[in-house]
Amino acid sequence: MSKIVQCVPNISEGIRHEIIEAILAPLQNQPGFQLISYEPDQDYNRTVITLLGNPEAMIEPLVAFYGKALALIDMRIHKGEHPRMGAVDVCPFIPIQGIDIDECVEYAKRLAKMVSETYQLPIFLYAKAASMPNRIQLPDIRKGEFEGMKEKITLPEWAPDFGQAICHETFGVSAIGARIPLVAYNIDLPTMDEKIASSISKAIRASSGGFQHIQAGGAVLLDKNHVQVTMNILDYKKNPIYRIFETVKMEAARYHLTITSAEIVGLLPKEALTDSLKYYLQVNQIPYRKDFTLDEIVSLSQQYLMFRDFGKDKIIEAFLEL
Amino acid sequence: MSKIVQCVPNISEGIRHEIIEAILAPLQNQPGFQLISYEPDQDYNRTVITLLGNPEAMIEPLVAFYGKALALIDMRIHKGEHPRMGAVDVCPFIPIQGIDIDECVEYAKRLAKMVSETYQLPIFLYAKAASMPNRIQLPDIRKGEFEGMKEKITLPEWAPDFGQAICHETFGVSAIGARIPLVAYNIDLPTMDEKIASSISKAIRASSGGFQHIQAGGAVLLDKNHVQVTMNILDYKKNPIYRIFETVKMEAARYHLTITSAEIVGLLPKEALTDSLKYYLQVNQIPYRKDFTLDEIVSLSQQYLMFRDFGKDKIIEAFLEL
Repeated sequence: MSKIVQCVPNISEGIRHEIIEAILAPLQNQPGFQLISYEPDQDYNRTVITLLGNPEAMIEPLVAFYGKALALIDMRIHKGEHPRMGAVDVCPFIPIQGIDIDECVEYAKRLAKMVSETYQLPIFLYAKAASMPNRIQLPDIRKGEFEGMKEKITLPEWAPDFGQAICHETFGVSAIGARIPLVAYNIDLPTMDEKIASSISKAIRASSGGFQHIQAGGAVLLDKNHVQVTMNILDYKKNPIYRIFETVKMEAARYHLTITSAEIVGLLPKEALTDSLKYYLQVNQIPYRKDFTLDEIVSLSQQYLMFRDFGKDKIIEAFLEL
Repeated sequence: MSKIVQCVPNISEGIRHEIIEAILAPLQNQPGFQLISYEPDQDYNRTVITLLGNPEAMIEPLVAFYGKALALIDMRIHKGEHPRMGAVDVCPFIPIQGIDIDECVEYAKRLAKMVSETYQLPIFLYAKAASMPNRIQLPDIRKGEFEGMKEKITLPEWAPDFGQAICHETFGVSAIGARIPLVAYNIDLPTMDEKIASSISKAIRASSGGFQHIQAGGAVLLDKNHVQVTMNILDYKKNPIYRIFETVKMEAARYHLTITSAEIVGLLPKEALTDSLKYYLQVNQIPYRKDFTLDEIVSLSQQYLMFRDFGKDKIIEAFLEL
């Protein structure tokens, strides 16, 4: 079985399409891996890019991609709803098939070293690749964001893992790492009151005493004219989507808000959906079938989890079957 | 304002009523504090005792109470469902009014020193009074229980805070400490299938990735002919009762079970109820009033949180108003 990883670089540009295209160019039509999707978000001014395939084949193109982001993004003028610290804000390797997390850590370190040496950029290793406990959680590294990094990076405990302890003037810094698959999950709330989204986020997220594997925050989507509870589910087996969805629904009831839509950003494993669909099928006394097709899973997810903009191309297994 | 604490010693006897009465005698009819309640549990073979009042007045009677437990309980023949390590298994001081947690820590240390010196008993300080991180959580100290303590206490990291590192032959050891109020909360499920209660417990408790301040397990109530999700809410501000109740209700739906009752064991602060009632009043668009009487709060709690066997005598403030 060939080694397959998912690699999900996030760049701090979600508005200027020609710039996004230029930065992505080195990742297009390469042997050994596919550029599965990229999702520019105007409000976040950020694009989540998803690669799938052999990590060996990804390294050189990723180095070239970092070079493009360095040339084309100026963090001094970047504004967006999502916290960020660099032009390529973060780049995780995620084991999918025939590879374990430790090998992904090695690929992360190789990429970090090459990017740092090629462009003199400061790189932090994070998640499973972290060199210190305070670097495991990305938000801890990113705290202070681009604007605060100039000073933060000079502190001994925040010296980068690769490169000099100087924040690059236009690029900022980048975090490269390895982690198990997470589900980037947002629930739309039909209001423009950000306080509601923030208050619901606090009810459910680990950092405020909620579910242990949930990161969450409130965000205003001016573009879409509503707010979101924007989340990462770091362990979808222990904190399944349905449990989060139902808890947010319950909290929203005190504001007399009815949730009508939610979204998945990037890819998710089929199992993250089927685990949650089983809940709704049980509640509705409909038998779960092991041979549900991906199309059926998509349709059930739209029905029960209220996903918008959702299709087979969000499910990792759709690409493994190609 | 006079200083008021709640003190909740747990003794390893829940069956022989004359023994329980004899052990409690030093705590009865004392000036400065009240023996609010004691709740013997036959299956647990354990009695939870609740004192409320001035901590200064409690110390001497508590020392005498430890003496009675030492004389009347033999841990070598004690059997029960609840884990335990001593005749007085645990004794926490909880700040209620006009006193902070640090002062409660001082009272815990005073009691620990006096009990240890008077009877040559080994005492561990726990929770906020803990001297080491591995002594914060009571289950960590208690691991191995009475039977394993003989050897455990000889390990350097488990030397007691007071007394010699020798487990008392009949008493065992005791933990004395200070903590904020917790809510002992059980939700009844109309089934005899313990697996359902266990599975729901796993969905919500901290140790399986659920809410951070929830301890939970499944229990069969043979005499009531149903199971329970039995919980401690260690921080009712961060994990309010309503959120736990609604999440358990949602999880129970997959088993087609409708929750019809729940219970509070021991006392809880009024605020733990009003914080949760606000949720239901908001959902139902009924204004919350700051001047709700305790009777109104009891009645709303029965209606929305489905408490059975519930009255004013479960609310700490009912005793403060006397």
